[in-house]
Amino acid sequence: MTALVLIILGGLCAVAYGILTINDVLRRDAGTPRMQEIAGAIAEGAQAYLRRQYATIAIVGLVLFVALAYFLGLKVGIGFLIGAVLSGAAGFIGMNVSVRANVRTAQAASTSLGGGLDVAFKSGAVTGMFVAGLALLGVALYYAYLTRIAGLSPASRDVIDALVALGFGASLISIFARLGGGIFTKGADVGGDLVGKVEAGIPEDDPRNPATIADNVGDNVGDCAGMAADLFETYAVTVVATMVLAAIFFSGQTDVSGRNVLETMLLYPLAIGSACILTSIAGTYAVRLGANQSIMGALYKGLITAGLLSVLAIAGVNYALFGGLSTAFTTNAGVTFTSGALLGCAVIGLVITALIVVITEYYTGTNFRPVKSIADASVTGHGTNVIQGLAISLESTALPALVIVAGIISTYSLAGLFGIAIAVTAMLALAGFIVALDAFGPVTDNAGGIAEMAGLPPDVRKSTDALDAVGNTTKAVTKGYAIGSAGLGALVLFAAYTSDLNYFIANASPTQYRFFQGVTVDFSLSNPYVVVGLLLGGLIPFLFGGMAMTAVGRAAGAVVEEVRRQFREKPGIMQGTDRPDYGRAVDMLTRAAIKEMIVPSLLPVLSPIVLFFVIQPIAGKSQAFATVGAMLLGVIITGLYVAVSMTSGGGAWDNAKKYIEDGHHGGKGSEAHKAAVTGDTVGDPYKDTAGPAVNPAIKITNIIALLLLAVLAHS
Amino acid sequence: MTALVLIILGGLCAVAYGILTINDVLRRDAGTPRMQEIAGAIAEGAQAYLRRQYATIAIVGLVLFVALAYFLGLKVGIGFLIGAVLSGAAGFIGMNVSVRANVRTAQAASTSLGGGLDVAFKSGAVTGMFVAGLALLGVALYYAYLTRIAGLSPASRDVIDALVALGFGASLISIFARLGGGIFTKGADVGGDLVGKVEAGIPEDDPRNPATIADNVGDNVGDCAGMAADLFETYAVTVVATMVLAAIFFSGQTDVSGRNVLETMLLYPLAIGSACILTSIAGTYAVRLGANQSIMGALYKGLITAGLLSVLAIAGVNYALFGGLSTAFTTNAGVTFTSGALLGCAVIGLVITALIVVITEYYTGTNFRPVKSIADASVTGHGTNVIQGLAISLESTALPALVIVAGIISTYSLAGLFGIAIAVTAMLALAGFIVALDAFGPVTDNAGGIAEMAGLPPDVRKSTDALDAVGNTTKAVTKGYAIGSAGLGALVLFAAYTSDLNYFIANASPTQYRFFQGVTVDFSLSNPYVVVGLLLGGLIPFLFGGMAMTAVGRAAGAVVEEVRRQFREKPGIMQGTDRPDYGRAVDMLTRAAIKEMIVPSLLPVLSPIVLFFVIQPIAGKSQAFATVGAMLLGVIITGLYVAVSMTSGGGAWDNAKKYIEDGHHGGKGSEAHKAAVTGDTVGDPYKDTAGPAVNPAIKITNIIALLLLAVLAHS
Repeated sequence: MTALVLIILGGLCAVAYGILTINDVLRRDAGTPRMQEIAGAIAEGAQAYLRRQYATIAIVGLVLFVALAYFLGLKVGIGFLIGAVLSGAAGFIGMNVSVRANVRTAQAASTSLGGGLDVAFKSGAVTGMFVAGLALLGVALYYAYLTRIAGLSPASRDVIDALVALGFGASLISIFARLGGGIFTKGADVGGDLVGKVEAGIPEDDPRNPATIADNVGDNVGDCAGMAADLFETYAVTVVATMVLAAIFFSGQTDVSGRNVLETMLLYPLAIGSACILTSIAGTYAVRLGANQSIMGALYKGLITAGLLSVLAIAGVNYALFGGLSTAFTTNAGVTFTSGALLGCAVIGLVITALIVVITEYYTGTNFRPVKSIADASVTGHGTNVIQGLAISLESTALPALVIVAGIISTYSLAGLFGIAIAVTAMLALAGFIVALDAFGPVTDNAGGIAEMAGLPPDVRKSTDALDAVGNTTKAVTKGYAIGSAGLGALVLFAAYTSDLNYFIANASPTQYRFFQGVTVDFSLSNPYVVVGLLLGGLIPFLFGGMAMTAVGRAAGAVVEEVRRQFREKPGIMQGTDRPDYGRAVDMLTRAAIKEMIVPSLLPVLSPIVLFFVIQPIAGKSQAFATVGAMLLGVIITGLYVAVSMTSGGGAWDNAKKYIEDGHHGGKGSEAHKAAVTGDTVGDPYKDTAGPAVNPAIKITNIIALLLLAVLAHS
Repeated sequence: MTALVLIILGGLCAVAYGILTINDVLRRDAGTPRMQEIAGAIAEGAQAYLRRQYATIAIVGLVLFVALAYFLGLKVGIGFLIGAVLSGAAGFIGMNVSVRANVRTAQAASTSLGGGLDVAFKSGAVTGMFVAGLALLGVALYYAYLTRIAGLSPASRDVIDALVALGFGASLISIFARLGGGIFTKGADVGGDLVGKVEAGIPEDDPRNPATIADNVGDNVGDCAGMAADLFETYAVTVVATMVLAAIFFSGQTDVSGRNVLETMLLYPLAIGSACILTSIAGTYAVRLGANQSIMGALYKGLITAGLLSVLAIAGVNYALFGGLSTAFTTNAGVTFTSGALLGCAVIGLVITALIVVITEYYTGTNFRPVKSIADASVTGHGTNVIQGLAISLESTALPALVIVAGIISTYSLAGLFGIAIAVTAMLALAGFIVALDAFGPVTDNAGGIAEMAGLPPDVRKSTDALDAVGNTTKAVTKGYAIGSAGLGALVLFAAYTSDLNYFIANASPTQYRFFQGVTVDFSLSNPYVVVGLLLGGLIPFLFGGMAMTAVGRAAGAVVEEVRRQFREKPGIMQGTDRPDYGRAVDMLTRAAIKEMIVPSLLPVLSPIVLFFVIQPIAGKSQAFATVGAMLLGVIITGLYVAVSMTSGGGAWDNAKKYIEDGHHGGKGSEAHKAAVTGDTVGDPYKDTAGPAVNPAIKITNIIALLLLAVLAHS
C-alpha cells in the first residue's frame, strides 16, 4: 500500500509543478495591448477549435462508452472515460498555457534571450508534466480503486479490461487530436504560405494575411495539444500493456517472504513513472542558458540531467520494490531473470531515447550531411530538392531501426518480453521532460508571429527566431522519440494480445470464454493467413498516410479560396486600411479539419474488427485470430518506417530551407530558396500531419484488438 | 519424356518467333541518313553501356561462380552461369532490336500510325518472347540434363540447388541491370531536363542538348534491358521455387497407375509456361489498330486474346498431364486438392494480372481521379503538386494489396501453398506478352526523339507522341504487374525457404546436414527474433530506395556539370554551329551508373548472410534461421508497398504533366505546367529507378537465403 501511495504522490508532484508553473508563467508581463490583442485572437481560435474537436470526439466517445459498458461492464466503460477525459484535459490545459505563454515569451525576449527561453520552456514543461502526471495518476488511481476499494484481484480480467479501456480512451483522443490538429495546422500553414508568400508576395506572419492567426492557432492545436494527446496515449497504453503482461507472467506467484510477486510487478512500471516525474522536474531546473548563449545546449543540459538522475531513481525503485538487484524471478512462461536485469532493461530504454535524439538531430540539424545535401540539391531546382529530400527521408529510417532492433535483442536477452516492456516504460517515463521540449516549439513559433504582427523591433524577432529554430529541432527530436517509443510500445501491446489470447484459449470451457473453445492459433510465418495479416497491417500506415496528405491538401485549398475571397472583397486589406477577418479563416479551417479527421481515424479503428469478421467465415476463428494478430505486427513494421521517414524527412526539408535562409546558396529570395520552400511545403504535412498521426494509428489498431478479445471472451 | 520435349518445343517457338520477328523489323525502312546517324549514336551508346555493365557484373559473377562451384559443386555453379548468361542474353538481344526498331518506328509513323505501332510492338514482342523463351528453356533444358542425362533424381538436393542457383544467376543480372539501367536513364533524363529545359530553355530531345542521346540510350538500357532482366528473373525464380515446392510436397509419391507424381508436378509449371508462350504469340497477332485508331485498344485486344487463350491452354495442360480436372493429390504436408483446383489457381493468377493492369491504369491514366487530382493541385504550385502526388502514391498501394491478399486466400483455400505457387506461375506465364507491352515503350520514346532531332515534319511527331503516351501507360502497367508477381513470387520463395529448412532439420544426422542437428525454428510472431527479422527485412526496401534516389540525384548532378561544361567550352552548340559531344555525356553517365549501382545492389545480397552470422553467436542457430526467415517476409511486406507506391505515384505524376500539356489548367508554359514538371522530375527516379529495383531486391534476399541453407547443409 505504501508503494502505491508514494507512486500517486509522485503523480501529484507533477500536477503541483504544473499549477505552480502556470502561475509563474501567467505572472509575466503580457506586453503591449496590440500584442495582447493578437494573442487573444490566437487563444480564442485555439479554444474554439479544441471545443469543436472535443465536441465531435465526445459524440464518438459516448457511443463507445455505451458499447463498452454494455459489452464489458461499467468499470470498463469508466476506464475508457478516465483515459479520454484525462488525455483531453492534459491537451486542453497545456494548450491554454501555451496560448498565454506565447505573448509573454515575445515580451520577455525583448529584454533577453534567456528570459524568452525561460517563459517558453516553462510553458512547455506545464504541458509535459500534466501529460506524464495525469497519465500516471489515471492508471494508478483507477488501479488503486479497482484493487483496493472495489476489491478486485489484481490479476482479474476485470482489472485488465478496465485498464486496457483506459488506454483505449487515451488512444481515441490521440488519433483525433493528432489528425485533426495536424490537418488544421498544416492546412493553415501550407494554404497561408501559398496565397500569402507566393501569390500576394507578403512575408510569413504578415498581419495582412487573413490566414496568419489560423497558422498560429494551428501550432498550438497541432504541436501542443496533438503531441500531448499522442504522448499521453503512448504513456498510458505502454504502462497498461506492461501491467497486462505482468498480470499474465506473475499471476499467482508469491516470493520467499510470502509477498505477492504479481502486486510488486504491477507496481514496478508505475513506480518507474513516478520516480522519473521527479527527475524530469529536476531536469527542468537544469535548463539554463550558459555563457555561450546556446539554447539547444541549455535544453540538452536539462535532458541529460533528467536522464542521468533517472538511472539513479530507477535503481532506487529497484531497491525499494525488490530489495536489491539480485532478486530472481521466473515468469509463468518460464523465463528467469533478476531485478538487476530489469534495471538493465530500463537503462537500455533510456539509452535508446538518447540515441534516437542524437540520430534525429543528425538527420534534421543544419550542421550535418543530410540537411546540407538537400540544400545543395536545391541549387538545381525544385525537382532535385524533392528527390534528395525523399532520399534522405527513406535513408533516415535505418539507424533508428537498428537502435530499436538492438534494444529488442538486448532487453529480450536480459529479461524476455517483460524486459522489452520495462525498457519502453523507462523510455516513456521521461515523457514529462520530452513533451516539455516539444511544447516549447509552438510557444516560440507563436512568439515570433506575435512579434512580427505587433511590429516589435527587429532584434526581438531575432531572439524569437533563434528560439524558433531550436523549436524546429526539438519538435523533430520529440517526434523521433514518440515514434520509437510507440513502435516499441506497440510490440508490448502485441505481446499482450498474444498472451491474452493464449490465456483465453487455455482457460476456455463451456462456462467461461466459450468463444475460445477449440481455438488453436498458428502465428507461424508459414501460415498464409499470417502473411495476409502482415500485408493488410502493413497497408494501414500507407493508406492512412495517403488519406492524411490528401486531407491537408484539401484543407489548404480551402484556405487559399478563403484568403483569395477576402482579398477580393476587401481590397483595403493589402493596403493596410482594412482588417482581414481572421476568425472566418479559423472557423472555416476548424470545420474542414474536423470533417477531414473522421474517415482516416476510422481506418485503424475498424480494420482489425472488420478483418476478424471477414476471415472468420472464410477460414474459421483460429485463422481469424492469427490474421488479426499478424495485422498488429504488420502495422508496426511499416508504420515505424513510414512515420520515421515522414517526420525526419520533413524536418530535414524544413531546416534545409532555414540553412539557405542563413545565407547559403544565395540566401533568401534566390532560386535555391524557392526550391527549398517547395521542399518545406512538401515536408509540412509529412512531418506534422501524416507522420505523427501514424503513431496513434499503430497503437489504436493494437488496443482495439485487445478489446476485441475482451468482448469475444464475454460473449 | 514426351511432355518435356513438348515443353522445350514451346520454348523454342518463342525463340523462333523472336528470330523471325527480328528479321521482319530489320527489313523495314530505316529512314533518312540523318535519322540513321542519330539512331546509330543511340545504338552505339546503349551497346557501350551494356558492355561495360556486363563486364562489371562478369567480375562479380565469376567470383560467385567459383564460390558456388566450390561450396555446392560444379552443377550448381553451372546453373548459376546459365541463369546469368541467358538473362543477360535476353536483355542484350532485346535492346539491340529496340535500338534498331526506334528509327524504323519513326519512319513507319511518317506514313501511318498503324505502321508505327506495328514496328514498335513487334520490336517489343522480340524482347518479350526472348525473355519468356530463354527463361523457360534455361530451366527446362537444365532440368532435362540433370535428370535425364546426368541421371540425378528429380527430388535430389543437387537438382534443387542447381535450379535455385540458376534463379540466383538471373537475380544477380536483374538487380544490377535494374539499378544500373535505372540510374543511367533517370540521371540522363533528370539532368538533361534540368540543364536543357530549365537552364538553357530548349525543348526535350533538342539536338543541341549534349545529354539528349544519353537520354534516349537510357530508355533502352533501363526500360528495355532492365525490365527484361527483371522479368526473366521473376519468371525463372518463380518456376524454380514452384519446382522446389513440388519436390518437397510430392517426393516419393506414385499414383494409382504407378506413375511418378513428383515428375508430373515438376513438369506442370514448365508446361504452363510453354503453353502460354504459344498463347502469347497468338496474342501478338491480335494487336491491330481498329477503326477508332485507339492504340491502347489495340494492345488490350492482344492482351485479352492472350489471356483468354491461356485459360484454354492451361486447361489443356491439365488434361494432358493429369488426365482431367478431378484427379486428387495429397502433398507430403497433408494438403489435399484436385487437378481442377490447380486449374482454378492458375485462372486466379490470370485474373490477378487483369485486375492489377486495370488498377494501375486507373492510378496512372489521364482519364481518372488520381492523375486529375495531381493536375488540379499543380495550379496552386510545386509544393501542392508534390503533396498530392505523394498522397496518391501512398493511396495507390491499397487496391493491389487487396487483390494480392484475395489471391493468396483463394488459391491457398483451393490447393494450399502449391496453389499459390501455381497462381504466380500462371501470372508469369504471360510475361512474354507483358514484356512486349513494356519494351514497346522505349522504342516509341526513342522514335519521338529521333523524329525531333532529325527535324521530321510535325505530324510524324504527333504520331510518335500518341504512341509514346500509350507507352507511358503500358510501362506503368507492366511495373505494377512485375511488382505484384514479384511479391507473390517472393512468397513462394519464402515457402521454399521454410520447407527447405524443415527438410534439412528433419533429415539432419551426424552424416548429413550436420549443421541442422538440434535446430528447432520458431517462426511464431511471438518470438522477438521474428519481430527483429521482420523489422530488418522491412528496412531493406526503404534504405535501398533511399540509396537509389540519392544515386540518381548524383548522376543527374554529374550530367548537369558535363552539359554546362560543353555549353561553356563550345559556345557554338547553342547557335547550332557546333555539334555537342554526345559520346562524352554517355560515357560519363555509364561510369557514374556502374559505380553507383554497386553498393545498393550489395545491400539485399549481403543482408541475410550478415544477419545470420550476427544472430547466430548472440542467440544460436535456431534463432538465426528464424530471424533470416522473418527478414525474407519483412522485405516482401514493405517492398510491395514501397515499390507500388513509387511506380504508381511516378506514373501518375508523369501523366498529370501530360494532362496539363494537353491543354488543361493553362497548358504548356503555364505555372501549373511548371509545377507539374517538378512532379514529373520527382516521379522519374521513383518510377524508373528506385521502385522497379525494389523487385529484384525482394527476390534476391529470398534466393540468397535459400542458397545459404544449401551452403550450410553442405558444411
